[in-house]
Parts: sequence; C-alpha cells; structure tokens
Amino acid sequence: MGLSPEQLAEISELRSQAQSTLRATAPGMEAHLYKPYQVLDHGFVRVVDYMGDDAAICQAARVSYGRGTKSVQNDDGLIRYLMRHWHSTPFEMCEVKLHVKLPVFVARQWIRHRTANVNEYSARYSILDREFYIPAPEHVAAQSEVNNQGRGSALEGEEAARVLELLKSDSTRAYDHYEEMISSDGQQGLARELARMNLPANIYTQWYWKVDLHNLFHFLRLRADAHAQYEIRVYAEEICKIVADWVPFAYGAFEEYRLGAETLSASALDCVRRMLKGEEVTKETSGMSAREWRELEAVLKG
Amino acid sequence: MGLSPEQLAEISELRSQAQSTLRATAPGMEAHLYKPYQVLDHGFVRVVDYMGDDAAICQAARVSYGRGTKSVQNDDGLIRYLMRHWHSTPFEMCEVKLHVKLPVFVARQWIRHRTANVNEYSARYSILDREFYIPAPEHVAAQSEVNNQGRGSALEGEEAARVLELLKSDSTRAYDHYEEMISSDGQQGLARELARMNLPANIYTQWYWKVDLHNLFHFLRLRADAHAQYEIRVYAEEICKIVADWVPFAYGAFEEYRLGAETLSASALDCVRRMLKGEEVTKETSGMSAREWRELEAVLKG
Amino acid sequence: MGLSPEQLAEISELRSQAQSTLRATAPGMEAHLYKPYQVLDHGFVRVVDYMGDDAAICQAARVSYGRGTKSVQNDDGLIRYLMRHWHSTPFEMCEVKLHVKLPVFVARQWIRHRTANVNEYSARYSILDREFYIPAPEHVAAQSEVNNQGRGSALEGEEAARVLELLKSDSTRAYDHYEEMISSDGQQGLARELARMNLPANIYTQWYWKVDLHNLFHFLRLRADAHAQYEIRVYAEEICKIVADWVPFAYGAFEEYRLGAETLSASALDCVRRMLKGEEVTKETSGMSAREWRELEAVLKG
Amino acid sequence: MGLSPEQLAEISELRSQAQSTLRATAPGMEAHLYKPYQVLDHGFVRVVDYMGDDAAICQAARVSYGRGTKSVQNDDGLIRYLMRHWHSTPFEMCEVKLHVKLPVFVARQWIRHRTANVNEYSARYSILDREFYIPAPEHVAAQSEVNNQGRGSALEGEEAARVLELLKSDSTRAYDHYEEMISSDGQQGLARELARMNLPANIYTQWYWKVDLHNLFHFLRLRADAHAQYEIRVYAEEICKIVADWVPFAYGAFEEYRLGAETLSASALDCVRRMLKGEEVTKETSGMSAREWRELEAVLKG
Repeated sequence: MGLSPEQLAEISELRSQAQSTLRATAPGMEAHLYKPYQVLDHGFVRVVDYMGDDAAICQAARVSYGRGTKSVQNDDGLIRYLMRHWHSTPFEMCEVKLHVKLPVFVARQWIRHRTANVNEYSARYSILDREFYIPAPEHVAAQSEVNNQGRGSALEGEEAARVLELLKSDSTRAYDHYEEMISSDGQQGLARELARMNLPANIYTQWYWKVDLHNLFHFLRLRADAHAQYEIRVYAEEICKIVADWVPFAYGAFEEYRLGAETLSASALDCVRRMLKGEEVTKETSGMSAREWRELEAVLKG
Repeated sequence: MGLSPEQLAEISELRSQAQSTLRATAPGMEAHLYKPYQVLDHGFVRVVDYMGDDAAICQAARVSYGRGTKSVQNDDGLIRYLMRHWHSTPFEMCEVKLHVKLPVFVARQWIRHRTANVNEYSARYSILDREFYIPAPEHVAAQSEVNNQGRGSALEGEEAARVLELLKSDSTRAYDHYEEMISSDGQQGLARELARMNLPANIYTQWYWKVDLHNLFHFLRLRADAHAQYEIRVYAEEICKIVADWVPFAYGAFEEYRLGAETLSASALDCVRRMLKGEEVTKETSGMSAREWRELEAVLKG
Repeated sequence: MGLSPEQLAEISELRSQAQSTLRATAPGMEAHLYKPYQVLDHGFVRVVDYMGDDAAICQAARVSYGRGTKSVQNDDGLIRYLMRHWHSTPFEMCEVKLHVKLPVFVARQWIRHRTANVNEYSARYSILDREFYIPAPEHVAAQSEVNNQGRGSALEGEEAARVLELLKSDSTRAYDHYEEMISSDGQQGLARELARMNLPANIYTQWYWKVDLHNLFHFLRLRADAHAQYEIRVYAEEICKIVADWVPFAYGAFEEYRLGAETLSASALDCVRRMLKGEEVTKETSGMSAREWRELEAVLKG
Repeated sequence: MGLSPEQLAEISELRSQAQSTLRATAPGMEAHLYKPYQVLDHGFVRVVDYMGDDAAICQAARVSYGRGTKSVQNDDGLIRYLMRHWHSTPFEMCEVKLHVKLPVFVARQWIRHRTANVNEYSARYSILDREFYIPAPEHVAAQSEVNNQGRGSALEGEEAARVLELLKSDSTRAYDHYEEMISSDGQQGLARELARMNLPANIYTQWYWKVDLHNLFHFLRLRADAHAQYEIRVYAEEICKIVADWVPFAYGAFEEYRLGAETLSASALDCVRRMLKGEEVTKETSGMSAREWRELEAVLKG
C-alpha cells in the first residue's frame, strides 16, 4: 500500500491510545479504526472516525431521550421496517469518515456521489507520490461486445503484456517529466498547479471522505453491483465488510432489501403474475423488449 | 423543560456509562453530552453525539495519516487560515447531533437550513404533549415600525396581558379539542394525522438534528445575529456556548472572521478609503442609499 | 381556491403574452403554464416556469451539441434505459417551478424533501389570509387500527359533524384573535412574527417550489403512493398529471419502473422462484414475517 | 475550439428555430443561447438553457401571482436588498444549464462545487478526442515563492520551451498509446474503461452543468477571484459576462456586495475604527498577524 514506516507508526500510535467517552461506541468498528485495508496495488481504505451504531438509528427514529433500545430484537425489527419502507432519515443519523487512497480515474467516478464531504490531497499545494495503478494481468480486459460501457474477458497473453508495458512506461515517463518540470535545481521550476497536468489518470490520489449511512448504502448499492467497474467495486466491497461489522442490523437489512433485492417493472410484475397462474409466458407474449425479458429471466432463475 | 423523571433517569444512566474508544474525543464536549439546556419556557437543546475536534479539522486539511497535529499553536493558525480564506471542507469533517425541543413556528424557520439531517417526532404516529410556548412578558413585543419583519419595544402592560391571555386560552382550548377528537372513549376517534391540524404553531415539537460544523456555523451566523427572531436566536446562542467548548480554535476563528466581522460593499469600501485619506464623506457624497449609509455608520462606530 | 379577481387578471395577462425564445419548449407544458389547479378546499398547484423536455434528457445523456435527437423512438428507448438502470443525472437536467398553496401541516411534510428550492410566504413580514383546510366529510377518518400512522374508515355522522364543528370554530376563533392582536387600532399591535404562533396547522400558506425532475419523481413516488396521507397525495396526483403532459416519455418510464413497479426483497425473490418451480410456499415456509408475507401476497395478486 | 462543421451546423440550426413560449424570457440571454465562447486553447462555454430573469427573483421573493413587478426601479432595489442581507432563496429560483469543454484537471476543481447537476461525457462508453491543453507561453509560470498553492512569474524562455515540449510530446505519446490499446485491428482491443487511465490530466473532457443562480454566484466569487488558478478563472470570467447580460440587476448587486466587497475581521474592524479616530495603527499595534496586516493594508489602499 505504500505506507511509510512513519505513517505506520502514526497509525499504531493512534490505535494504542484508548480514550474514555460517553458516546455510543460500536465494538465492531473500534476493531477497524485507523487500520488500512489494501485495495488494488497501492490503494487502501481505512476508517478514521464514525458516529452512531444500530441503536442510534432506532433512537433517532423514536426521537428518544435515552439509548432508546427496548430490546435487541426490537431494534432489529424496527431497522428492517425502516429499510423496507424507505424511511431513510434514521439511517442518516450514523456517519463515517474514511481515508481512501485510490487512482484518479476511480476518484472521478466516486465523486459523482455528491452527498458527502470530501477533502482531497492537493496537487496544487503538494507533490504527488510516484504511485500508479497497473492492473493485475487477469484484469487487463477487452472491451465488452454487448455492453458499451463494460469489459469482456481478459486479453490474451501477448496483447495483455503489450498493454501493461505501455501503461508502465508511460506512467514512468510522465512522472519523470513531472519531477523534471517542478525541479528548482538550476532552473525556476514549474508551478505545481501546472505540472500536475502531465500526470495520467492511473496515478493515486487520496482523500478524507465523510458520508452518512443512508448515502453510503446508496453508494454501495450502485458500486458493489456486478455492473460497476471492477476498480471501484473492490473499494465498495471492502467498505461493505466494514459496515457489516459496524451496524450489523442495518447491514443485514441492506442486504435483504437492497443488495439482494430486485425491482420488477410493471410489465415484469404482470408476467410473474401470469406465470404464477400457470400461463406459459414467452418473450413474444411478455410485452417486454428482448433485453428486459432476458433480464427478467435472469432474476427469476436467481 | 418538561422532562419526566423517567427521561431524566435515562439521561443520567447514559452519563454514567463511560466507554472506551480509539476515536478522537473532545473533553469540552463530553461534559455537555446528553445534558438538556433549557431554552424558552419548555424547550431545550442537548448534544446526543459528536464526531471530531479541532485536530480533526487540521487532519482533514492535511489528509494526514495520524492525528495530524504538529503543535497546538500550529493547529490554531491553520484553522484561522482556513476560516479566513473560506476553505470550508475541513470544517465539514466535524459533525454534531442535537436533540432539540422547540415551538413549531421556530422549527419552521430552522428547517429552511436544508443541509442537515432531521428526524422529527411524528404527530401522525404519536400524540403530542400539552406544551405551548407562551412568551415572557418582556418579550411580548410590538410590530417594528422600521423593519417589516421585526419587532419593536415590549407591549405595554394591559395590551401585553390581553395578548398573553389570548395565547394561553387559545392553546388550551385547541389542545382540549385535539384530545377530545382523538379520544376513542365512546367514539371511533379521529386519526392523529388529521387531529394535529387543530394545534397552533406555538406547540412544542422535537427532533434530532445532525449537521456538520461548516453548515452549523452558517446557521449560527444567521440565527445568532441581532436581526434573527428572538425565539430562534436563543437556541443559536445556547448552541454557540456548546460549540465554543467543543472546538475552541474553530469557534474562536468563527467569532473573529464571521460573527464579529462585517462585509463592506464596494461602495462602502470606497467611502472608507476616502475617509482614511482625510476626506469628509457624507450621506450625500457617499454614493449609497440612506439605509446603507446608516448601516455603514453603525459598523464604523462599532 | 380563493384567488382574487386581481390575481386571476394577473394570471390571464401572463397567459396572453407569448414571447419568442430559442430554448426548448414543451407544448404540453405551455398549456398548463400559470393556470391554478384546485387541490383541497382552498389550495392549488400551478406551474410558474419549466426548463427542458424529453429531448433535453437525451441531449444531456449524450452531452450533445444540437438537440441531440436522432429519432423520437430512439429517445423513448434511451429514457426507459436510463430510468431502468438508475442513471439519474440526465433527469436532473429538467427543472420545474411551482406555486403551491397548501395547509401548513402538509407543508411541514412536503419540506422534508430537501433537494429543492423554496420561497415561502412570510408570516413574519406579511399577514396571512383567513383560509383554513376543513376536510370534506368523507375524509374525516378514524385512526387506523392496523397502521399507527394512517387512517381508517370515515367517521360516522355525528362524530364527524362534531369534529368539523370543532375544526371550524377553533380556526375562526384563532384567526379572530390573530387579527385582534396585530391590530394597531387603539393599541400598539403585536409583532406579526409573534402573532402567527396562534394560528393552527390547517391554515393555508403558499410557496414557490423549484425542483429537478429526478427529485420530483422521488417526491411523487413517495407522495402519490397509497400510503401517503390523503392531504399531500392529492397534490402529488395533480402534479403527476402535469408532468405526464410535460415529459411524456419520462413520465411513462416513471410509471413503468417506479410507480407501477415493486421491489422484492431477497427472501421474497426466493419465494417467487420456488413458486415458479411448482413449490407450494406458505407463510410458514416462506421464511418471512407475517406482515411481509401478507405484503408479498398482495403484490403477487396485483 | 475544435468544433466540427457538423457540430457548428447543429448549433446554427438551433439558433434559427425560434419557438413561442409563455415563460419569462431574458433577451440578453437569448442572444447567447447555444453559442460557444472559446476558453483556453480548445475549451468553450455555451448556454444550453436557462430559467428566469431579474423579475423572477422578485416574483419568488414576493410569492406573487403575476410577474410580480411593480416597477423596474423597485425590482433593482429589492434585489440589492436581498443580496445585501444574504437572502439567498430568491436567487435559487433562476437556473442555467451550460455545456462546458475543459481540461480534466480544471474539471476536478470545478466538481468540488457539489450543489449542481452534472452529466459528463463518459470515457467508459466513448472514445475521447485528441485534444490537450497546452498553455500559452506567457502562462507557463514558476511556482510561487510566497504562496504554496499558486504560481509566480512566467518561466524564462528556454525553460518554458522545455516544459511546453514535454507537455506536448507526453500528451501525443499518451494518446497514441491510448488509440493503440483500444484498437481492435488485429487484436481484441482493451476496454475503454481501462484504456482511459493512460490519458493525462490536460486532456479535454466536456459536460452539461446545471446550477441555480445563488450557487453560481458562489462559484463565481471563488473562481473569478484573483487567487483562483488561471485555468479555471478564465471560465468563471466568461460566465460572468453571460450572467451580466442575463440578470443585469442581480449581477450588479453581486458585483457591489460580493465580488467588489471585502469582509473585515473583528480585529481588522477594530483597526479601521481606531484609524478613523485618528490613531496611527501599525502592524505592531494592530493585534493582527503580519500576513493579515498586509492583507488589510491592501484592502484599504484599494
């Protein structure tokens, strides 16, 4: 992950200093705090802070004075009810702050989720590190032939090797020239805010990203999905594991009613009802497009 | 404040249970946690949870690995710099969750600040308490004659007494009838979602309100201002005291660069420059409207 | 709807003055512009302005230079695709501005949708009109016995009459006293910002509400739903009719993939798959709670 | 600007087709509609649609039924009042949609303004054009020695030439290899979503960007400022010209109370008051840091 010994020491120090607090704490989350979990070749995700737990969701839903928990079972049921009926505001009462290191082209997708707070490392102010995402050979994939915005199978040996060679050499050269341009050794040195424009989109950046649980679930539903680009999906999957330990009831409800759920269109519902009455529904009699019919078949097969 | 013994006991219990955490804690805020601070006759503000402290602001601004503090003095300087130059994102990295009890007409003003998370006590689902805001006699004020949306001096004795009598009796009657309509004693009982419409805007409601520090400062700048309506200003002032204990550096910078600062228009700046050169600038030669000139005079007098 | 002859004349005048523009126009929406459509006893919805049409959604999705339309059929397909796959940003490229008159208790529900722009008539600044929502007898309903936040059947004759009498007399008295308090006839006159607190939640307010199409669809999905409170649902239904004329393709896709669609949980999907394989699934073997099983049965019956 | 003859023809066609509308129109804006205004070497800004005008701001502030204009002078005064007292919601009632072509490193700064709607050209789905920002020689500047995030004077001849040569050759090579990797000529062809990672941050992207007038003013205040990076400032300046023609009163108020205004801190105000009383205030007696004192001196000199 490219953390320096100093950085690792800073993290260790933080993990060694327990404080006393009257706030709600989530033991499952305390175990994760500050630890960097590797994603891709040089990236990571780590939790820097959090607010709330499963009980805090119920407490807000009930606008209660104390912890608001009647019983653990009760809380689970309430959380499932809230998730099922799209009552999103109680989930907004939990918050998490992550430190993420990620390639710029992934960051550009990520930032499209606007309901979050972000502090990104500034390449106007500071010098970026020489770290580039180079895909593992099995992820050097061909353009998909059925999906304009997707990838197909892995490229075959020689072509993959050629791609990797180009990515590596171009990154190296771009960074060499970046350093050369900003150097003040025997010259004035180009402004950092200009020099950064020579760096390709596979360079790593990092940011603090803070988001409430409702909006985080929305992010995860879209980005942990099979259709998301692999390079952002692996971040989403890592975050899923963390959230499952933080708010186990809420995460369980999220799996049941969002991640593992499917929305059936009016036409799809009509087909299912007819099937259940014993009718043999076909693509032709479904009233749906070929593509939607194929999608429905996949959903019903599971 | 109308807290029941049970509610007070729940709060005491919460304050008696310290937990161990690896997160950043703010000692000044721990002292406030859960305690209700009375505002108006039956309202309160209390902190339910918080995330971050002064150091967390710097940590985010530096996208650092550890606590990110070089020295305390250093942090103060950085925070003042960020506030002065409108770098708002590091302040968004702190978050606070409040439980507020407030009259409905105050809630309607408050909710206009949209960048916050809210869970309000539901009068569709539950029965509201018989608690109404009745102003103290010194706050029963006349319509301002110079400001269409403000109040002037306190009403004189008899008129004030008449007003208070009307507010009290109308509230009482409205609540009596509310109870009468929802009662299922010898009748079906009106739906709560309908019965609530009979209740006046001085009835108390309550909510959980969660907001980041940047947006909280924006709220406080507008609502702790002398032009804000008294009934919301007292909430803002109570929150100011809490924030000053939570993030003392950030609050100090807020006082210096926002609360105690003034924005001078292009024309006002021009006047000040001329004055400093020794020119005698008057309303007539200022190039400003009478009202703006009066406002500038007030600013320059202090 | 309580529009004065002057107001109606202002509206007529606006409708009589066509302008020339190079912008995209939606003929279906031009027919609605400015016209007030009555909702409840004194409320209304009317379109004050709009931006974009079906083609504008496609144009944004394609980031195109011209109108971006290849063919009408093509646009319909693209819009359905975008809606089906939760690509929400192109729908955000259409915007509508409504003028709405509505009871305060409805406004309080409405405002919970935060991603919109709002200018409300100010009762600090101005005097509210004497207009209160009094439900039609068939909507004076009992508290639901199965749903804590809902209503059941209409109250029977005498009880309904009593309720209506209370609502009317309390509204009248509250407004009489409001007028009496603010009057400057022989007295100072209470500040409007204070006097308004005596008014009940069934008084009408009004606002300009501006929202993009994506967030409007979100609002409509929740508020045109059978579980929404009747008094807000009628507004949502009126807006649905307007939107159907404005962006017919987008509205059609909204009906197919949102309004008429259903989200099946992971467990519900499992049940449906087993049913389609011929298994007799019962409440007991479904693995779901009684309530969820009941909901699934309802969905599958249609 | 790199618009193809086809694109220019599409734009011409749009400008030739006037429609009839009942909506408010802004003649100053109609003149700009669709026309691309060049920014940097290959970028542009063009207005694709707009909603509202100066009168619409007043109409919303008054929640009026008709156009809401009493007199033109009246509107100007109201708009200045709203701007001066930070009443932001009426300005949110105007909206503009822009099509912008800009280098990726500028887009990354721009997107930090989250309160806007964005549709960006997708490099997952489509192939980017071979267009890179190469600064004009006078903008190839050295790193600032006083400001860590700024630039100083232009680099001298030979060094500037070296920088330009590196930027050009690296861009060319990166794009050559991008094309080579995605080519399906005699090979499978790398997925576009992967190949894009080889492209540097000076490549041009484009998007539709829709924002309300209040948030646009916020963007312009920060980005048309002398401290903003040159490459984003030129976009902001171009937009300023367009807005001045669209809503002349609002833009005038923006210049008077925002762009040309200055916020004086509590300490700075104190200094100014002492100066006006005749005291000779110095850096030492100002109670301010050296940097703040320098900033105040600059403000007071004008």
